Amino acid sequence: MSDHIDLARLREVLDGPWAGVRNAHREHLDARFLPVYGETGDQARARITRLLTELPTELGIASAFPTEYGGGSDVGGSIVATEMLAQVDLSLMVKAGVQWGLFGGAVSALGTKRHHDAYLRDIISGKIFGCFAMTETGHGSDVQQLRTTCTYDPHTQTFDLHTPHEAARKDYIGNAARDGRMAVVFAQLVSNGRRHGVHAWLVPIRDAQGNPPPGVTIGDAGAKAGLLGVDNGRLSFDHVTVPRDMLLDRYGQVAPDGTYSSPIENDSRRFFTMLGTLVRGRVSVGGAASAATKSALTIAVRYGDIRRQFGTPDADREVLLNDYLAHQRKLLPALATTYALHFAQTELVAALHEVQGGDGPVDEHRQRELESRAAGLKAAQTWHATRTIQMCREACGGAGYLAENRLPSLKADTDVFTTFEGDNTVLLQLVAKGLLTGYRDEFGSLDGWGRASFVAEHVREMVLERTAARSLIERLISAVPGRDEEVAVTDRGWQLKVFEDRERHLLDGAVRRLRNGAATKKDRPFDIFNDVQDHVLAVAAAHIDRVTLEAFVAGIEDTADTPVRALLSRVCDLYALSVIEANKGWFLEHGRLTPARSKAVTGVVNGLLKELRPHMRTLVDGFGIPDAWLHCAILREEPLRQEAMAAHDTAGDPQAVAA
Amino acid sequence: MSDHIDLARLREVLDGPWAGVRNAHREHLDARFLPVYGETGDQARARITRLLTELPTELGIASAFPTEYGGGSDVGGSIVATEMLAQVDLSLMVKAGVQWGLFGGAVSALGTKRHHDAYLRDIISGKIFGCFAMTETGHGSDVQQLRTTCTYDPHTQTFDLHTPHEAARKDYIGNAARDGRMAVVFAQLVSNGRRHGVHAWLVPIRDAQGNPPPGVTIGDAGAKAGLLGVDNGRLSFDHVTVPRDMLLDRYGQVAPDGTYSSPIENDSRRFFTMLGTLVRGRVSVGGAASAATKSALTIAVRYGDIRRQFGTPDADREVLLNDYLAHQRKLLPALATTYALHFAQTELVAALHEVQGGDGPVDEHRQRELESRAAGLKAAQTWHATRTIQMCREACGGAGYLAENRLPSLKADTDVFTTFEGDNTVLLQLVAKGLLTGYRDEFGSLDGWGRASFVAEHVREMVLERTAARSLIERLISAVPGRDEEVAVTDRGWQLKVFEDRERHLLDGAVRRLRNGAATKKDRPFDIFNDVQDHVLAVAAAHIDRVTLEAFVAGIEDTADTPVRALLSRVCDLYALSVIEANKGWFLEHGRLTPARSKAVTGVVNGLLKELRPHMRTLVDGFGIPDAWLHCAILREEPLRQEAMAAHDTAGDPQAVAA
Repeated sequence: MSDHIDLARLREVLDGPWAGVRNAHREHLDARFLPVYGETGDQARARITRLLTELPTELGIASAFPTEYGGGSDVGGSIVATEMLAQVDLSLMVKAGVQWGLFGGAVSALGTKRHHDAYLRDIISGKIFGCFAMTETGHGSDVQQLRTTCTYDPHTQTFDLHTPHEAARKDYIGNAARDGRMAVVFAQLVSNGRRHGVHAWLVPIRDAQGNPPPGVTIGDAGAKAGLLGVDNGRLSFDHVTVPRDMLLDRYGQVAPDGTYSSPIENDSRRFFTMLGTLVRGRVSVGGAASAATKSALTIAVRYGDIRRQFGTPDADREVLLNDYLAHQRKLLPALATTYALHFAQTELVAALHEVQGGDGPVDEHRQRELESRAAGLKAAQTWHATRTIQMCREACGGAGYLAENRLPSLKADTDVFTTFEGDNTVLLQLVAKGLLTGYRDEFGSLDGWGRASFVAEHVREMVLERTAARSLIERLISAVPGRDEEVAVTDRGWQLKVFEDRERHLLDGAVRRLRNGAATKKDRPFDIFNDVQDHVLAVAAAHIDRVTLEAFVAGIEDTADTPVRALLSRVCDLYALSVIEANKGWFLEHGRLTPARSKAVTGVVNGLLKELRPHMRTLVDGFGIPDAWLHCAILREEPLRQEAMAAHDTAGDPQAVAA
Repeated sequence: MSDHIDLARLREVLDGPWAGVRNAHREHLDARFLPVYGETGDQARARITRLLTELPTELGIASAFPTEYGGGSDVGGSIVATEMLAQVDLSLMVKAGVQWGLFGGAVSALGTKRHHDAYLRDIISGKIFGCFAMTETGHGSDVQQLRTTCTYDPHTQTFDLHTPHEAARKDYIGNAARDGRMAVVFAQLVSNGRRHGVHAWLVPIRDAQGNPPPGVTIGDAGAKAGLLGVDNGRLSFDHVTVPRDMLLDRYGQVAPDGTYSSPIENDSRRFFTMLGTLVRGRVSVGGAASAATKSALTIAVRYGDIRRQFGTPDADREVLLNDYLAHQRKLLPALATTYALHFAQTELVAALHEVQGGDGPVDEHRQRELESRAAGLKAAQTWHATRTIQMCREACGGAGYLAENRLPSLKADTDVFTTFEGDNTVLLQLVAKGLLTGYRDEFGSLDGWGRASFVAEHVREMVLERTAARSLIERLISAVPGRDEEVAVTDRGWQLKVFEDRERHLLDGAVRRLRNGAATKKDRPFDIFNDVQDHVLAVAAAHIDRVTLEAFVAGIEDTADTPVRALLSRVCDLYALSVIEANKGWFLEHGRLTPARSKAVTGVVNGLLKELRPHMRTLVDGFGIPDAWLHCAILREEPLRQEAMAAHDTAGDPQAVAA
């Protein structure tokens, strides 16, 4: 570990397969694209809208779209581009995500050739700005229960789009308040007196002069905690006529006479298939959250490496913040977790690219696995971002509260990530359900929690499914001797085993409790699930921890450079042991750690902090964020101030001497 | 516990001894004083400045000042007033705190009669706005090391106030950027070639036209994460002449010939005595943080009681958020902790009022104890606020991100509290030091950590010192049978014993490790302390937990109404067991809990959540925050939307039926 780290080697490892996309952003996104601190909402919106049309073509911002419409057919690249944009300005990233990810993505994924031919080029070029109008005021998490209706009339061969009451208005819709000309509107499809569940229509919401067409009412969601540059709004429809061919009809068609047909018979399954095509949004948000976390950690670590406070008898100068154990305890485990999540995200993006990037039909099993992984890592990354950016702001003291030091906007802009594109708690339940069913369709639909009549025989095999480095991980685990006490807590096999064991035990327990509940609370189906909700969420958390550790281990295995590999291995130890330390109550309760070994974990963590202290700066520099992108006054000014103060202190105070 | 709770009785208990002050605020602070969402910084500053001069006299905003200058000599009342103001608008509260607490408080506490006669009336009336200019860019936590100098010249009988370099400029100073006419400036006093440590001077920084006098440079700290209505700025002094009598000379005098004298010889001790008179600021900030936490919890709990999401087979309507175990797990332990901290704050305010409210000299031992308690509860309350308000915003989903629902400003405005008026980590160290020295002056000064040559024999007796309900607590503890396994985890005596035992064991361990370190690391004094910093901080945290629990127990003991008492007792159980659950790793490691008992704690916590679910609304209504003060759109609109949706759903969709 004393080897010199070649920063270029570390960056290569972290940049991963889409290094080209990352470098294009580093090269072409100049100061013009950085946030402006202290703007009004109107100023921010105008600026971000303008910048959206000025994004350099080199970025390949629309790279996920099919090549024949001017895209790059590069799904993975489009996610990495979003991560990079997030390090420049989160409003810009979200606005781009709404336009090309959600709106354009929905037209692409849910529409058919006639929609693609008519609109994709203008969507890619930004000639048509659009909205993704799914969420309603009354239904955010449970979007299957949307109240907006779109009813087909065979006489006029048109749909009637209608908002029956205020709880059914579309809410929080990006691009709606100012710029959107069209919207993909989700509503309950009704034809010939029958409901067919939620579908999507492409609906104009503004004419060339910016006025809404008759029946469309647009509201402004107003001031928000952050993301000032994104014009979130509200849409209501008062019996708006929508031509038949504006139904995005890949998964459900309505014939001129009103006959409904679909390749997927079950309404609920069709709906989740439609949602599934939009998994990219969650992968993007998770990646963007981690990108912002890296910016915050880079600022806090670099500041802690120059900022001094409180003297000590054995040194002339005051102590650097990063030399305090308490400061290391805040920054380093968060940094290690950020590394772990980085490798998990890289693995996820590669899987997404493989599953959805081809021309052929999507493998359903792999798609479901992808959705679960995306949901879990979205929750993990966004909560980690919220906690870590908050901690970084505090680690910079009063300076961290000033806009000019970037941390306030990183915090405020990412804050919504924990609840949008799926509320994190709801997403964890989705992950848990996937584990409990063994990814099988035993319940039919997500709302089947209440029935809880399942038998989870297939659980074990599913839990052990891994996406990367399968054989390596099995080899490491099987090399662990039977008696834990004989193994160092830094043994990778032991760490992997402990993570896996925690997940499995929690899962077994949840299955047992749900089965008992199903037997004893037949008349209270809600209670069957609700009474174990905390346990079920713990299963999901343990699962995500394991998946993340395994991705980190796989990433290290792929690293050729010896010093970088050694450094990453230490960071991985810190990640694994921080998770074990944070959950030591569980491990002790279940006899997985003895008290002595639990205390030893804390000792080893503190030892790792000492060992990693000299590498803190290297670890954040490895993220490869251009200096200019940090856009942070204290990083520019504090070194000069410290120099001036040191020079003055050494010279003595001339006044005092003269007096 | 099934007894009906009379809300008026619960409010009486919570309102406590300064109920009159609370009610005056509820009555006289109307909608005009509430935050305006989406303002620019300039608009917010202008509005808050105007409102500050329009605060109704009934509030007794300057009640801490001596009666002879127009105050009310009511120290406790002034703190409670600050808490109430914090529930209306945090910018208003901070701006008032700067003017009357920090600035006016410093003139009052550090000045002598000639300063009081000349300025206090105009400060109280708001005719003179002022600043408290202590923090420098280079020294925030370690203010003893300020670099600004103020050098006396006996020839001119004036001081020369000087900022030697940029790290010595005054930074983050409230009232500086826009409104302040004078500032209490802290600087190193130099006279006849000798330094005498930090003192304070009253210095004009703007004339009647608002222009700074020669040599004074004023900067603007610019946009901040929150508190937009507070004009934080920067002050630099280029050899500014300050008349001799503008030294606030209660604790240090300079004679015309430059001879320095002070009632306190030791520079460091004098400095901490000067700081100690300002302990009110910390008590106010802690109280304000809890006040804002109560607002956030009231919003989230009331929203969770009307908002529904996801259906269940056994009910017609969707499930209320507050009925989900996961939601209860988020809100209720936070609510219980807020109750606990409320009683701890009430006890602290009463102690402050007693120690500092009289005319006679302040008891030094009690003053030190007060400072430690204020530091610890400030840290606990502000961290709890940051975590809880964040959680409340997430518990309200996307709505929690919109400014119109209040939570964004509650979060952003309180965010700085964790690092201002003392960085929380530094404050915890202060608490720990107090415990390690047994509140005695064995080290001399706070910078003595490095020497670590202390012997902490007096630790035990000090730990057991309690401010309230001493005999009750001892009786409860002594009633606990020897074998823990036989006692219910809801036994109050057992809970108290466990909290006390954790603090004592952690403290003993820290003392032992510091002593060993002092013996083996003589040449590395910094490491002696730094290697156990995490342990030392854990001591402080355990101490604050114990003090908080004991205050809660004392508060219940003082409650006469039986149903209210029973409810509070359950809330106290939830607080105590939540803390034990959160720290179960430690209790298991140290054999204080068996695995079975540890699991039982989790079961009992979940049982308490069920038991308290019907009282959630009552518990937040007990805070007595006027509806209008919540200033939150979803609380007004969501009930109407839910009604409209229910009516519509029951009627069936007319469109679908007609089609």
